[in-house]
Amino acid sequence: MSFPSRRVTLADVANASGVSIGTVSKALNNRGQLREDTRDRVLAAAHKLGFETLPAESSSGGVITIGLVTSDDIGRFSIPVMYGLEDSFGPDQASVLISNSRGDLVRERHCVETLASRNVDGIVVMTNHTGPRAPLPKTSVPIVYVMGQSSDPEDMSVVVDQVQGMLLALEHAANLGHQNIAYVAGPRQDYSARIRAQAVQEHAPTFGLTLVGDRALYGNWSEAWGRQAAQMLRQRVEPVDMVLCGSDEIARGVADGLREANIVVPHDVSIIGFDNWAAAALNSRPALTTIDMNLEELGRAAGARVLEAITGNSRPGIDALPCQLIVRDST
Amino acid sequence: MSFPSRRVTLADVANASGVSIGTVSKALNNRGQLREDTRDRVLAAAHKLGFETLPAESSSGGVITIGLVTSDDIGRFSIPVMYGLEDSFGPDQASVLISNSRGDLVRERHCVETLASRNVDGIVVMTNHTGPRAPLPKTSVPIVYVMGQSSDPEDMSVVVDQVQGMLLALEHAANLGHQNIAYVAGPRQDYSARIRAQAVQEHAPTFGLTLVGDRALYGNWSEAWGRQAAQMLRQRVEPVDMVLCGSDEIARGVADGLREANIVVPHDVSIIGFDNWAAAALNSRPALTTIDMNLEELGRAAGARVLEAITGNSRPGIDALPCQLIVRDST
Repeated sequence: MSFPSRRVTLADVANASGVSIGTVSKALNNRGQLREDTRDRVLAAAHKLGFETLPAESSSGGVITIGLVTSDDIGRFSIPVMYGLEDSFGPDQASVLISNSRGDLVRERHCVETLASRNVDGIVVMTNHTGPRAPLPKTSVPIVYVMGQSSDPEDMSVVVDQVQGMLLALEHAANLGHQNIAYVAGPRQDYSARIRAQAVQEHAPTFGLTLVGDRALYGNWSEAWGRQAAQMLRQRVEPVDMVLCGSDEIARGVADGLREANIVVPHDVSIIGFDNWAAAALNSRPALTTIDMNLEELGRAAGARVLEAITGNSRPGIDALPCQLIVRDST
Repeated sequence: MSFPSRRVTLADVANASGVSIGTVSKALNNRGQLREDTRDRVLAAAHKLGFETLPAESSSGGVITIGLVTSDDIGRFSIPVMYGLEDSFGPDQASVLISNSRGDLVRERHCVETLASRNVDGIVVMTNHTGPRAPLPKTSVPIVYVMGQSSDPEDMSVVVDQVQGMLLALEHAANLGHQNIAYVAGPRQDYSARIRAQAVQEHAPTFGLTLVGDRALYGNWSEAWGRQAAQMLRQRVEPVDMVLCGSDEIARGVADGLREANIVVPHDVSIIGFDNWAAAALNSRPALTTIDMNLEELGRAAGARVLEAITGNSRPGIDALPCQLIVRDST
């Protein structure tokens, strides 16, 4: 993949002169300590490539700017990704600008165009759901998709390996000696809810686990559904050793529902959540063992893909990053 | 206040030609329906002022861009403000770019400089705390402070009137016929916690209310503190009709603590929270009556101040916006 029509970037100059982007920035802005011949080499490369220097009044001139387009209306998914993005470039090497699409595809396209017109060096587009999505029109700068991958295999995507996340939960259940598990899922129409539930249904036997009722209980992403599911599970005749949940909010509801029925977690039943969202996982009684999607790592990986693309080394395809098990008091 | 050194903006052109910014945008980008003489007038004004037209490849050219610098690490305060900012300019009239300072003053300054260098038309700086803050160095574009006001009275600030918010809570208590109230506050070192607690201490008598123990109970912004405070209140000899809380998280903890002691909310005791944060207020049992800071309105007001400044009509000083009482099941 190449971007033949895009403007010349700092990274092009860095590439051509065999130095880091930071060094190019110093040379072009006449800042910091630099050997005279290095500075000359960079300036020559910049001139040859037709690099347009940033406005002289720009005190942040030379720093890479990445645009992050998100549709996350409370920011709990996009802020960690933003932090990871910033980290991926090192301190003072990058600025990240977020633009919010509110989940509207027309607005999303508008956000991307606005960022491109603001001369950002690369764009990261984050969906508020996982699963494939339609690609955006190509822009003058590289686009990396994060959370939900582009359906165009030529695009660059970085996603969470949710199946691996559920395998961690199943392995944890097996290690604790559990046999009978239940799965309380989000709404069936959500890809995230389905793929997690399917992973449990498919792989439970591999770990010697039996899924109570043979299938996931679909509901919604709420504590109220968790409390309701806890009641439903109490009425089943089969014993349940562990309740796996599609989110921490559901898991918190299950924990409340069980406690209020005088069932002691984790003594009588274990619970695992999903997300490691502090507001639910840490406020839950007991605090939740959960699967962390490593969103900051996702941001760092997206930053690395953008940087590769900026430096002309882009590679198409999907990177799926692993989740992490966080053990707390509910197991 | 004037910005003599700033670049010429769309708003300047609009001002000079006596039309709206949207019309200027249409004229400069040769889009939409426009009378020929209007288009000519705008182009002449743009030429006279030395307005630099946006790049031809910019499909969003002519749209105002506002930079929002926030230090809100989960986005729950900044996303509504961002929505309000966007709304204040009308559909397709503005784009908002967020930059996150992580509560670090050096990084905050860097964010502001980066946005200014990206040629945004105005900058809104939002703190994650209320109360006065040190002003930032002036930039080439206007800055509006939101949530925490600049300590420089020549700056433009838009804040929430938290005292008025607590008066709404006290009035609601009085209207319900309550007499004895308790106040469970956040940490004493936080301005928000102190100003809300002081408002209750000072104005309770005005509404014929007695503050149990004569003072607020300071703790932290957590559900656990709310549960602990509920226990402390149960041990007091004085009756308590209503517990006012410094946040919805504290209030949710109080609700849980009281329910688990078989005290029925609102039958035995009423509870009022603060923030109207869905994750706490709606998941609480019962759902919380609370004070809403109208963050979207705050964003709209900040947008209006920025627009005034962009159009050369900036006025210094602080706008304090009212809160709103949201009545649910806890009172």
